[in-house]
Amino acid sequence: MDALFNPRSIAVIGASKTPGKIGHAILTNIVKYGFRGRVYPVNPKYDEIEDLKCYPTVLDIPDEIDLAIIVIPAEQVPKAVGEAGAKGAKVAVVISSGFKEAGRADLEESLLEYARKYNIRILGPNIFGLCYTPKRLNATFGPQDVIPGSIALVSQSGALGIALMGWTIVEKVGLSALISLGNKADIDDADLLEWLRDDPNTSVILIYLEGVKDGRRFMEEARKTSVKKPVIVIKAGKTRRGMQAVASHTGSLAGMDSVYNAAFEQSGVLRAGSLEEAFDWARLFSTKKVSKGENTIIITNGGGVGVLATDACEELGVKLLDPTEDLKREFMAYMPPFGSPRNPVDITGQATHVEFEGAIDVVIRKDIINNIIVLYCQTAVADPIKLAEVLIKANKSTDKPIVAAMIGGEKVSEAMDILKREGFPVYPTPERAVSSMAAMIKWSMKRRVLEEKIG
Amino acid sequence: MDALFNPRSIAVIGASKTPGKIGHAILTNIVKYGFRGRVYPVNPKYDEIEDLKCYPTVLDIPDEIDLAIIVIPAEQVPKAVGEAGAKGAKVAVVISSGFKEAGRADLEESLLEYARKYNIRILGPNIFGLCYTPKRLNATFGPQDVIPGSIALVSQSGALGIALMGWTIVEKVGLSALISLGNKADIDDADLLEWLRDDPNTSVILIYLEGVKDGRRFMEEARKTSVKKPVIVIKAGKTRRGMQAVASHTGSLAGMDSVYNAAFEQSGVLRAGSLEEAFDWARLFSTKKVSKGENTIIITNGGGVGVLATDACEELGVKLLDPTEDLKREFMAYMPPFGSPRNPVDITGQATHVEFEGAIDVVIRKDIINNIIVLYCQTAVADPIKLAEVLIKANKSTDKPIVAAMIGGEKVSEAMDILKREGFPVYPTPERAVSSMAAMIKWSMKRRVLEEKIG
Repeated sequence: MDALFNPRSIAVIGASKTPGKIGHAILTNIVKYGFRGRVYPVNPKYDEIEDLKCYPTVLDIPDEIDLAIIVIPAEQVPKAVGEAGAKGAKVAVVISSGFKEAGRADLEESLLEYARKYNIRILGPNIFGLCYTPKRLNATFGPQDVIPGSIALVSQSGALGIALMGWTIVEKVGLSALISLGNKADIDDADLLEWLRDDPNTSVILIYLEGVKDGRRFMEEARKTSVKKPVIVIKAGKTRRGMQAVASHTGSLAGMDSVYNAAFEQSGVLRAGSLEEAFDWARLFSTKKVSKGENTIIITNGGGVGVLATDACEELGVKLLDPTEDLKREFMAYMPPFGSPRNPVDITGQATHVEFEGAIDVVIRKDIINNIIVLYCQTAVADPIKLAEVLIKANKSTDKPIVAAMIGGEKVSEAMDILKREGFPVYPTPERAVSSMAAMIKWSMKRRVLEEKIG
Repeated sequence: MDALFNPRSIAVIGASKTPGKIGHAILTNIVKYGFRGRVYPVNPKYDEIEDLKCYPTVLDIPDEIDLAIIVIPAEQVPKAVGEAGAKGAKVAVVISSGFKEAGRADLEESLLEYARKYNIRILGPNIFGLCYTPKRLNATFGPQDVIPGSIALVSQSGALGIALMGWTIVEKVGLSALISLGNKADIDDADLLEWLRDDPNTSVILIYLEGVKDGRRFMEEARKTSVKKPVIVIKAGKTRRGMQAVASHTGSLAGMDSVYNAAFEQSGVLRAGSLEEAFDWARLFSTKKVSKGENTIIITNGGGVGVLATDACEELGVKLLDPTEDLKREFMAYMPPFGSPRNPVDITGQATHVEFEGAIDVVIRKDIINNIIVLYCQTAVADPIKLAEVLIKANKSTDKPIVAAMIGGEKVSEAMDILKREGFPVYPTPERAVSSMAAMIKWSMKRRVLEEKIG
């Protein structure tokens, strides 16, 4: 499996000179994204592509090959997999479609036979490739400029995965890995969990899942992974009709949703209710923080958003600490007399970034407080850019999880972009900030339980 | 009440020359946003402000005054309200704070006495003003460049309202009106509903609510309004602790949430679960469309997002139509053999904007289909900008509600911006598109029931 993420050399079987072709896009992405290893295009039609010498077959390459990327018509794939295996490649990434998903289960079986015979593992077929940013490996036909980060994204759906790839760039979501699973003929979610949980470059794993082949193994690997880092799953096919849609889409059975729910719960997997929620949570988890307890404080410069966040906390079981009189006094140093030192701590619309900093600092210093939710409504007195600087500094100075929600105009957008680039979990509404904190607390608590069971 | 939205002349009592002062910001906004009427600054300290002649008191103005905006210290407000009333102004917008919310219920009472005596209505006190874009009236100290549109936004919270004002500009959300309610000493949500329901420039009313004074009247006005246009409420203080936060924030009692829920249900009010959801729904309602029935079709170029949307439809009670064999055949003209003509109609990743257009056209032509959800995952073959053009054209050619979700990179962002500017309801995830369609269908059905009851 290591050859999938850390190959020293890659053969691109079916590399093409023609822009617009997938075999061209993948080779170009590998080269231009700056892969730190050797790349060999394979195509009998060419002598060189992109200034790289091109070989008629993989067997002609005068070097060892760790990873083979295969982009040729389905009928030719099984033999090419065999050759790659014979050449010593450990994994073949089969981009090509036209297998089980197109009614050709026979071709997929043949592919697997070659793989078994030549001792090579298969990612795919019917996928858009994979990306591993620590090694500057972008072997996909998606966008080139993937932002490095610590979220590993695994997608069973190709169209969705590649679309999300572009979306992460716009939204400044940093990825460690992006893996398209497609038909899962061989490598599946469980295999990836096994590898990614020990990957120091990955702090959270987000999986778009339509169905698993081996439920027991998935649960086992998910449980072992959840002890180390959070696993977020978007499970499609929740409803009866959704299951039918999965069946008509992938030909695989989605299975009863209640069974999945129970399995997720037992293995510590966080099930997101929507795409948005999944990425919101991942943003917070990518800070690598762990919550040490349930006591949460909301600091706000707006009463209304404070109430909305309070409602969300109550609904999601986030425990708001009742400040002692001493603690109240400390907060009161950073608010006018009509502010509120209770939780939400309302430092009012008169607060500048200095009062935000002071109140946040109180929370960071107090051992009894574990988690911090900061809410900001744009005002003329509190510059959002300066507040962003305060938040980034605070986040670095403590291991307590901090989230923020910021509402306002152009300058707030700018401040949020700065925060996102710095990996600070910021959201456009109080509800989304709270939902992310709730997931953080849930996972942190669950992790302890799982740890005790295992230990 | 008409004087509030359609004043022919405005006096700004407490207008200031000093940048940074609220009395300066409001006058500047009124002038620069291009108010179509006469404006008179009032301040004994100046002879002119912003090239406008300034008067020592409102009584000195040699013209009739419809609306008075008051931005002076709280103690002086009651008398100023009296003078404005004596001058013939019909409404006073009291921006100033320092009343009930600051423990000065006596001042608020005195304000109301003057108002009653001089027959003038009060908006506020303790507000950031109001905006009515059809008359180019921006009498707030918020951002200047509010985007005209058909959503009326009413906020009990000042900080949230003004922050959202900036947010609507960034997000290209068009507003007809924006009203800050503050302490609601006189004019309240019910009064606004009464006026806004007959306002041809407003197609949906979005209210951030912490509590109402007269529940019965609110319900009555909400019911009468819901027959004509949707009323979306974000009710803060849902939970026990949220209610306490409201109390500590506004001094008003939030009341039992279950009572609110029942009241909303009865009067046809749509209760949004979050800020985001409220604006998502409003975006669709601002198209002024009404759903004629429950039958909904999903058209997608990605199987995965199709499944996610299907799940969301099932969870929110959106009825997905099962296409007849005839209808399936029509859809099949716009997809490769491995596409699916069932619902979701999967035109596959091979679809260009032409196939999208063809499939959408089928849906528009069939009377049995009422509502359309279009899903797009970015691909190399389907240009999102061209798809945006298709969607805009389709939306104009039918009275069936259409929503879209688009996932992808920079070019998808661009396409979504174009769509938003054109007032097309587009969302970044399938779940949010479905939630908006669910609200549309719910309101459209409820409206019929309410109409029958009244008629």
